[in-house]
Amino acid sequence: MSTWRDNLTVETMNKERANPPFDIEAMAVANHGGAHNLQIKRNVQLEVERDPTFFNDDIYDLTKAELRERTYIKMPYLFNWLSNENLNDFQSRLAVVATVDPGFWTRFGVHLGLFTNAIRSGATANQFNYWIQQGMLSARSFYGCFGMTELAHGSNVAGVETTATFDENTDEFIIHTPNLGATKWWIGGAAHSATHCAVFAQLIVKGKSYGTKTFIVPLRDTRTFGLLPGVNIGDIGKKMGRDGIDNGYIQFTNVRIPRAFMLMRYTQVTREGEVFEPPLAQLTYGALLTGRTMMVADSSNSAKKALTIALRYAAVRRQFKSDPKNEFETQLLDYPIHQRRLIPLLAQAVGFGFVGYELNRMLNETNEKIESLEPGDEELEATIELLKATHASSAGLKAFCTWATLETIETCRQSLGGHGYSSYAGLANLGQDFAVHCTWEGDNTILALQSGRALIAAYLEIKSGKKQGPALNYLNNLEQSLSAKCKSTDELLTFEGIKTAFANASAHAVKRAGEMYEGLMKSGVNRETAYEQCSHSRFVAASIHTSGFIFNQFVSAVEHEKESDNGVKKALATLCTLYGLWQIEEKASFFFRGGYLSPDQLDFVSETVTRLCAEVRTFAIPLVDSFMFSDFVINSPFGRYDGNVYREYMAMIQRNNPQTRPHPYLEKLVKPLLHRPPNLESTHEQIDIDEEIAEILEERKAEGTA
Amino acid sequence: MSTWRDNLTVETMNKERANPPFDIEAMAVANHGGAHNLQIKRNVQLEVERDPTFFNDDIYDLTKAELRERTYIKMPYLFNWLSNENLNDFQSRLAVVATVDPGFWTRFGVHLGLFTNAIRSGATANQFNYWIQQGMLSARSFYGCFGMTELAHGSNVAGVETTATFDENTDEFIIHTPNLGATKWWIGGAAHSATHCAVFAQLIVKGKSYGTKTFIVPLRDTRTFGLLPGVNIGDIGKKMGRDGIDNGYIQFTNVRIPRAFMLMRYTQVTREGEVFEPPLAQLTYGALLTGRTMMVADSSNSAKKALTIALRYAAVRRQFKSDPKNEFETQLLDYPIHQRRLIPLLAQAVGFGFVGYELNRMLNETNEKIESLEPGDEELEATIELLKATHASSAGLKAFCTWATLETIETCRQSLGGHGYSSYAGLANLGQDFAVHCTWEGDNTILALQSGRALIAAYLEIKSGKKQGPALNYLNNLEQSLSAKCKSTDELLTFEGIKTAFANASAHAVKRAGEMYEGLMKSGVNRETAYEQCSHSRFVAASIHTSGFIFNQFVSAVEHEKESDNGVKKALATLCTLYGLWQIEEKASFFFRGGYLSPDQLDFVSETVTRLCAEVRTFAIPLVDSFMFSDFVINSPFGRYDGNVYREYMAMIQRNNPQTRPHPYLEKLVKPLLHRPPNLESTHEQIDIDEEIAEILEERKAEGTA
Repeated sequence: MSTWRDNLTVETMNKERANPPFDIEAMAVANHGGAHNLQIKRNVQLEVERDPTFFNDDIYDLTKAELRERTYIKMPYLFNWLSNENLNDFQSRLAVVATVDPGFWTRFGVHLGLFTNAIRSGATANQFNYWIQQGMLSARSFYGCFGMTELAHGSNVAGVETTATFDENTDEFIIHTPNLGATKWWIGGAAHSATHCAVFAQLIVKGKSYGTKTFIVPLRDTRTFGLLPGVNIGDIGKKMGRDGIDNGYIQFTNVRIPRAFMLMRYTQVTREGEVFEPPLAQLTYGALLTGRTMMVADSSNSAKKALTIALRYAAVRRQFKSDPKNEFETQLLDYPIHQRRLIPLLAQAVGFGFVGYELNRMLNETNEKIESLEPGDEELEATIELLKATHASSAGLKAFCTWATLETIETCRQSLGGHGYSSYAGLANLGQDFAVHCTWEGDNTILALQSGRALIAAYLEIKSGKKQGPALNYLNNLEQSLSAKCKSTDELLTFEGIKTAFANASAHAVKRAGEMYEGLMKSGVNRETAYEQCSHSRFVAASIHTSGFIFNQFVSAVEHEKESDNGVKKALATLCTLYGLWQIEEKASFFFRGGYLSPDQLDFVSETVTRLCAEVRTFAIPLVDSFMFSDFVINSPFGRYDGNVYREYMAMIQRNNPQTRPHPYLEKLVKPLLHRPPNLESTHEQIDIDEEIAEILEERKAEGTA
Repeated sequence: MSTWRDNLTVETMNKERANPPFDIEAMAVANHGGAHNLQIKRNVQLEVERDPTFFNDDIYDLTKAELRERTYIKMPYLFNWLSNENLNDFQSRLAVVATVDPGFWTRFGVHLGLFTNAIRSGATANQFNYWIQQGMLSARSFYGCFGMTELAHGSNVAGVETTATFDENTDEFIIHTPNLGATKWWIGGAAHSATHCAVFAQLIVKGKSYGTKTFIVPLRDTRTFGLLPGVNIGDIGKKMGRDGIDNGYIQFTNVRIPRAFMLMRYTQVTREGEVFEPPLAQLTYGALLTGRTMMVADSSNSAKKALTIALRYAAVRRQFKSDPKNEFETQLLDYPIHQRRLIPLLAQAVGFGFVGYELNRMLNETNEKIESLEPGDEELEATIELLKATHASSAGLKAFCTWATLETIETCRQSLGGHGYSSYAGLANLGQDFAVHCTWEGDNTILALQSGRALIAAYLEIKSGKKQGPALNYLNNLEQSLSAKCKSTDELLTFEGIKTAFANASAHAVKRAGEMYEGLMKSGVNRETAYEQCSHSRFVAASIHTSGFIFNQFVSAVEHEKESDNGVKKALATLCTLYGLWQIEEKASFFFRGGYLSPDQLDFVSETVTRLCAEVRTFAIPLVDSFMFSDFVINSPFGRYDGNVYREYMAMIQRNNPQTRPHPYLEKLVKPLLHRPPNLESTHEQIDIDEEIAEILEERKAEGTA
């Protein structure tokens, strides 16, 4: 009767790897954007596995306080590499660290990514050098935090209420928190780490307000770490995830800083209180793009990590038999519904990876152009167009990739059945750490609407004859896109056919949003109100446009993969087709609405998705192997390379919950409950009050007092 | 410039309540399934708020160990009421407790709901009395746990591998865990609380296996709480949520129990080792229904709790201005996209409430019929049909209601922006506690497939002329349903029109699944394989059928609400229409595919959803007020009744993260990093090794050794 065999899971896992249809190393290179990145990943994974500061066997049982300390002890690791390798490699290293310990990555990133970049992009040359001399880059006597968000102001940077008032008498700014809502909030590093803060505040000179600027405000004495006068910092405590970060709040009460501590590359304030505003305000937004790009890359990596766990477990977990004659129960991965749950997400995660590399390329191109730009430059308009396009694409991609990944992680978690609810499976924490990506550096809903707004703007430009960039080609050929129709289901098996389907669906969604906006404008409301009133249509247009954008990038990556007999290109092509068709199925109503698909054709799409899932299932394990996460980084018994799931799960549970520990509240609580005497009530004799009442009343009556 | 006013949020909240279009008390009665339930809720909320064992201000900061102890001290509260009120009222009390402390509810429920019910349904009269005498009901010298799940066997109850072998010599069963995979796992109460376990094990008599039966196995000495011989229990540690429950694993090594400890109401084993199997095996499944019904009710309650927080915050949070002339920034709740995010979910949560009451009614009816049934009864077939219908409906409802609620909670959490990531907002924990509903007592995917399987079976019965119950009326009128078409958009504003739309979409989805199944059977595969191969279609059919079922129940609740000038019926009707149309929009491809809707009609549906969201927005705050959660139960500054969000948020943060605490690792870690000396490398003088090498080689050459 028993189907248990101690090494069955390991044997099963070995079989999954017996005949991969592609060279796993070559697939790994493709999935990592090149052999160099892959090598960095291997180096970093090996280093952290051996470095005791990265010990993570007990990580799921650490309290918030323990986690914060554990996170801080990893700091020297990154500061050492920061001063010993080139910046590109260091960025690749950071991407790996993000998958090892997302909280650590962020805690470090607040100093290096947010604070240092704020200075890099906003300081003059002298100011930049000054802060380097203060120890900014090496974090010697210096640790930065980023004071943008306020308690009552998140996304609305222009609306922050902290003030920076110029005092002409002393040549200083007075940094002040005027009310509770203006308290700086969520400031990573504020509670335990930071000595300085890049404070976003309203610049006020001679009673006039000039909008939000950035000021470097010392928070603590760099020797004693004591708070400086007027600075009040508190810990904002427990969070959903990333508890390794010491987020805090900061209130400033008339804190004075030298005038030169305002970052003056764009806006200048002279000794006399003259204010000079920048000619190219919109170019300062380039800084926002870095975070988004990293989040798209992190989406792919986090989804791949989750899928490694879910798919490896699905390969070795057995449940039920479809035929009593079978020797063993069926592998979960062989159930079509389990394939349907996980395998489209696998294709998506691979696609997100390619989109991440492309977005990174766009970001670097944009940044280079911006850096080299001078006022009056001929390239100015072209650069602004490029920035706008990168901005719109990255906004939509950040929103929809992070949402899709959060869903992927949760689907993976649930696919483990009950074990997904155990912290030791790793997926609960992965999701809790990841979730914040949907909110920070631009709330996803707001970013999706920004992307939709850019689509409406593009639609209006098209109508007035202005061509759009390659990502919006379907709008350049608007009539053709709108009237496209699937002539035969064969088309749906080609990249061109699926591209046309997205062009049709996207064009209709953008047109509908654009027409709604135009109608509202004609009705006489102002522009902001018009955009607000068509926000649902904007959102929907951004959603379908972004799916199409991702599909197109995926196709382009497949097409750039060189012809070879290593099997990589063919497998990627299958994944790409699966992603495209699955997205059509998921968003089928758009493809009906645009007239591209008939009901029968949709059935064909569904059947093909099911068929492709079964095809990808045959190489699902070699594919997740090519994601090249070490067991140490996966840190989940369910995602182990060797498939020895149950023995390791039990061992991990026992290591972290020693059986010899005494029962913590046996004497205090358990025994008193179990051994409590019977309820008192049942032993009470009833007091017969009614007879007495009758007597009392009788007496009173007799006395004449009643 | 500043828009901050200390009491603006409170003033704003007051305005939201100025003109409710319905009587809030009457709406509360409707939402609680009657005045009696509402009164119980008020009583319980008042009791727990005053009871120090329910203190919850610090709950988000408790460690797992602290939470377990905190949970256990609440036990006397429920055991007191269990013996002092009628069971119906006690059930209503439990539903409230579930929203106050889900972990406590479950921990208590394992003893009372799972263990006691297992005995109630499976024991003979003498056995039942015996266990009552042992203290089962009052938990005196007794605390039960439920040993069904095994490490390698979750949903497949028939496949558990623990054995119960009858020893004729001693008249005992030997309970044994034959291998690691058969370890009882996830057993709530095992680690710290339980004295006895209801163990699911394979009954083996004279070498023959009779399938899975239930055995009561003592685990611990009820006086000392020491483990009994052969019983090995460990703690399975940290979980995603509900850490107040002490889940454990149990391994039995040849543990002997008297023969009478096997529950023998259905299957009997005599002293001589004769085994008598039950005539009505399928009726034992009734026990599974209770948990599902409670989870549907809990879905509604948890969604309402989350929405209370999200909508009250959306009412007072302001961000951006659509018109610079406005005095204040715009309330989030006034943004159409924010309405779109939250208000359909509000309608859904109200609908789930009514479905919960209906499912509870079906459950009671079914249980009464089963209890009164005798072998050979004429009612047998009708009862089995009723059980099947309740089973199929409850399976689909449990799956789709818990999924939708998990999504609701996460959407609410994200709608708070950054603050949703703070534990003190309450939504992260709510989601983490809730998530397990999607897995336990039947994994959602498996339950959805069961529901789909029942739909295929019904379809085949219809084709062979057998009528179905009222929930499947659309199959009884199959041709009519399949060919239905929306003749005018006016129809979509009526309950009948929306019902017809669901009938059309569901009929097509069920037909497609049914035909696919028939095709597979004709191809010669066995039944299980055929069901597996069409599992995606089954899933899809169950999804659309369940939406339609919920809509129909919602309509029926609205129609049963009595005519009155209290405004309740009208508001509920609006919510019901919104729910129906929003579901059509969400699942639009089914309504296209079935031919019911044209593209223009879908646009009408979308526009109507947007319009109805705006309408419900006007009474959203009075509606969440009618959910009648006390501030104590909400336990989130963002969901406070008075709207005084920021002051209370800051106060809660400061209470739980005292500023006077010393920096925990300043001397140990922070100062050593900040004050570390410059890198050593830069002070090293280079060793000029190359000149020496040249000399050495020269020498060797001279010696003739090179």
